[in-house]
Amino acid sequence: MKQFLSVHDVQDIDALIQRALSYKADPWKDQHLGKNKRVGLLFLNPSLRTRLSTQIAARYLGMEVIVFNVDKEGWALEFEEGAIMSGNTSEHVKDAAPILGKYFDILCIRTFPTLVNKEEDYSELYIRQFAKYAGVPVVSLESATLHPLQSLTDLITMHEFWPNSKARPKVVLTWAPHVKPLPQCVANSFAQWVNAWGKAEFVITHPEDYELDETFTRGASITYDQNEALRDADFVYVKNWSTYRDYGKIYSNDPAWMLTEDKLSLTRNARVMHCLPVRRNVELSDEILDGPHSIVTHQAANRVWAAQAVFSEILQHL
Amino acid sequence: MKQFLSVHDVQDIDALIQRALSYKADPWKDQHLGKNKRVGLLFLNPSLRTRLSTQIAARYLGMEVIVFNVDKEGWALEFEEGAIMSGNTSEHVKDAAPILGKYFDILCIRTFPTLVNKEEDYSELYIRQFAKYAGVPVVSLESATLHPLQSLTDLITMHEFWPNSKARPKVVLTWAPHVKPLPQCVANSFAQWVNAWGKAEFVITHPEDYELDETFTRGASITYDQNEALRDADFVYVKNWSTYRDYGKIYSNDPAWMLTEDKLSLTRNARVMHCLPVRRNVELSDEILDGPHSIVTHQAANRVWAAQAVFSEILQHL
Amino acid sequence: MKQFLSVHDVQDIDALIQRALSYKADPWKDQHLGKNKRVGLLFLNPSLRTRLSTQIAARYLGMEVIVFNVDKEGWALEFEEGAIMSGNTSEHVKDAAPILGKYFDILCIRTFPTLVNKEEDYSELYIRQFAKYAGVPVVSLESATLHPLQSLTDLITMHEFWPNSKARPKVVLTWAPHVKPLPQCVANSFAQWVNAWGKAEFVITHPEDYELDETFTRGASITYDQNEALRDADFVYVKNWSTYRDYGKIYSNDPAWMLTEDKLSLTRNARVMHCLPVRRNVELSDEILDGPHSIVTHQAANRVWAAQAVFSEILQHL
Repeated sequence: MKQFLSVHDVQDIDALIQRALSYKADPWKDQHLGKNKRVGLLFLNPSLRTRLSTQIAARYLGMEVIVFNVDKEGWALEFEEGAIMSGNTSEHVKDAAPILGKYFDILCIRTFPTLVNKEEDYSELYIRQFAKYAGVPVVSLESATLHPLQSLTDLITMHEFWPNSKARPKVVLTWAPHVKPLPQCVANSFAQWVNAWGKAEFVITHPEDYELDETFTRGASITYDQNEALRDADFVYVKNWSTYRDYGKIYSNDPAWMLTEDKLSLTRNARVMHCLPVRRNVELSDEILDGPHSIVTHQAANRVWAAQAVFSEILQHL
Repeated sequence: MKQFLSVHDVQDIDALIQRALSYKADPWKDQHLGKNKRVGLLFLNPSLRTRLSTQIAARYLGMEVIVFNVDKEGWALEFEEGAIMSGNTSEHVKDAAPILGKYFDILCIRTFPTLVNKEEDYSELYIRQFAKYAGVPVVSLESATLHPLQSLTDLITMHEFWPNSKARPKVVLTWAPHVKPLPQCVANSFAQWVNAWGKAEFVITHPEDYELDETFTRGASITYDQNEALRDADFVYVKNWSTYRDYGKIYSNDPAWMLTEDKLSLTRNARVMHCLPVRRNVELSDEILDGPHSIVTHQAANRVWAAQAVFSEILQHL
Repeated sequence: MKQFLSVHDVQDIDALIQRALSYKADPWKDQHLGKNKRVGLLFLNPSLRTRLSTQIAARYLGMEVIVFNVDKEGWALEFEEGAIMSGNTSEHVKDAAPILGKYFDILCIRTFPTLVNKEEDYSELYIRQFAKYAGVPVVSLESATLHPLQSLTDLITMHEFWPNSKARPKVVLTWAPHVKPLPQCVANSFAQWVNAWGKAEFVITHPEDYELDETFTRGASITYDQNEALRDADFVYVKNWSTYRDYGKIYSNDPAWMLTEDKLSLTRNARVMHCLPVRRNVELSDEILDGPHSIVTHQAANRVWAAQAVFSEILQHL
């Protein structure tokens, strides 16, 4: 693996899942693989789980880790080619990235979308500029439109709860209400990975106007009827996102879309997933999060093994 | 030791002091005790000495350390059970703590009081919620009402300066002026530990209206007469705190309460202690801080050994 | 070496350059030199390259590193002797520094000038107070008026590109436009080191009113005519600074002072240097930064070896 920006950088999804699970069984088994290697974790936006799990994964492989919160400890970066930098940005990615590439063997970066300029966000300008100029493998810790480490984690988790079955599980991605306009990253990326995996019956449900980019959803069934979607589901993935077409808006925020025990009774005792952080009693009810169907903590713990598997594949080709 | 939130978590104070001093004599002697263990240091409020000394102590025991400034790098946490999270908090401690418990073997947390809501502060809601949901040992790096690592440090320091004596030292905790309303934590905790230790004649002195919670002070003599308190003292602990009864206020801020050389002449050549940071020439005069009676730097350096002793006891039961 | 605040702390510049280059050739060769030693990196101002390169250098020598952003994670420090601390500063350097000296074997500090009070800035009050009270070696990560790690890096870089020649290279430090008033540190320090090195024909060029402190420039030729300065140059160091005499101002900001390919044609195929971050198309044109004459990335990468050489010299005398 030369970089990790999306599922397209993965040759064999199932092999990557197996590698992650082998680390879960024995985290320290490759603790010499990253000896004398150094990974930089750059955050242009804040992070809890991603920062901690990635840092832990790198240490299991014996790598040095340096975390750098660019937004707080550094300064505003410029990403436009040819910019006359007389404004607020004080360093161009063309100058910053090559030096980071000299300092680190692997560079991990989190960027966020503007939610204002769709073309800019969906061009993934920021992370692509880093990947272009760094000269070392770049790993996405979530970018403007995708969150591949989260999606790999999600597949690992579903694999664990659906191990030897021959029947394909029914996987439902359901939109949920929220109080702020959120990126489409997690939903886009989940759709992209489940479709590429090809081992599930995949349904996406959301209110009208919340259609996602077809680039990622193609292959899934899409319906506005949440109840119909939930029927006989084996996994329910709950997530809010803002509108994609008329970009970055909240059109309707109907509380009836919150997942509750009542709705869950339509499923086949489905496991409930969420990438966290979750707004309790807005996206998901307390009764579900505190009940037996929720696997969100289990899922978040798997973030470590996803990151470790990705680092491991990259290190083998350094 | 299963957690370290107050003196009540300590079975044998003297043994803990001895353990700390054994690390002071030979910091690296147990450097394999924490091998492959990981401690998380979460700060909901900023810290200098506590952060550094705890991090250093953990490394002496061979543990991995990750520092996380939740207030700056993360987001606002919700602590109320049953909250409908449509406001400013973006993650519930019920979701954050269990995941941190998956990521870390020991979790250290600093929280601060509101100084507005006495019931909430004195219920220690924040740190107790973490301890309840983390599933791993929680160590207080200062909470709303207590600061046990500081108090352990204080006893270690007094023990060093009063080693073989059979007579009990006279220990005076004296209120001092300040410019901001401060928590009662250090004073509460010092009182709680000195009383539990039982090896000192213990006097607390402060202006009227600055009474502390009797839960912690019971056993000490309390007087409004600073001069009387200081007479023949062996140790003088200087600290400001805001009012407890009419909560979080500054009633009087009489500069005459600042400790000076004149007042110190009433004592038996007392050693002067302070937890730092100290407002020079407000709480304590330059002449004392720069003179031979001050042991504040010595005391602050002991923070490392206090933390190391606590980690060591916890690691032995992991 | 007992401290590293300026070139005056260096006995033999060439030996230090050679040491740095020996680490560049084999970074891990002294990885046991710093075993069980701890270095603290204190930032009173933000940093990217300095923070990362210094941290990496320390790890190559096996030292523990703790980074502390005092401005963000800590609190405002007081530096005035005798201050009555009833204002915004909450800890005096006289109390903070000795404790940091107990916690760390080496203390690295970045401070910045006010650009308002020339006397205070040029007295280097902040870093000198730290050095006075810490009780351990202090390394400057840039102070109010100097940036010695950058200057050592600059000499290392010039040495690499001018290795065996007997003729002295012509080195030109040229002022460049900028949008904000910047410190004189990098220019002062570069002048101080090039003069002390004594191996170059050294010319400084800048618009009228941008004269630097003669303490540092004495020995260099100084001219307002940039074209004349550039003629036959072997190295061109581009840097903005604000005025020194009428302190901290921007007098003229003539865009004609930006270095372009046209101007570079006056030189002897000069290498172009800059300490970064650089404002593209304000200080330096894209065509130069993206062209074959720029060695700014190479130069920035050398920051690691400069820091490693300095740590190494200090560790040998601990």
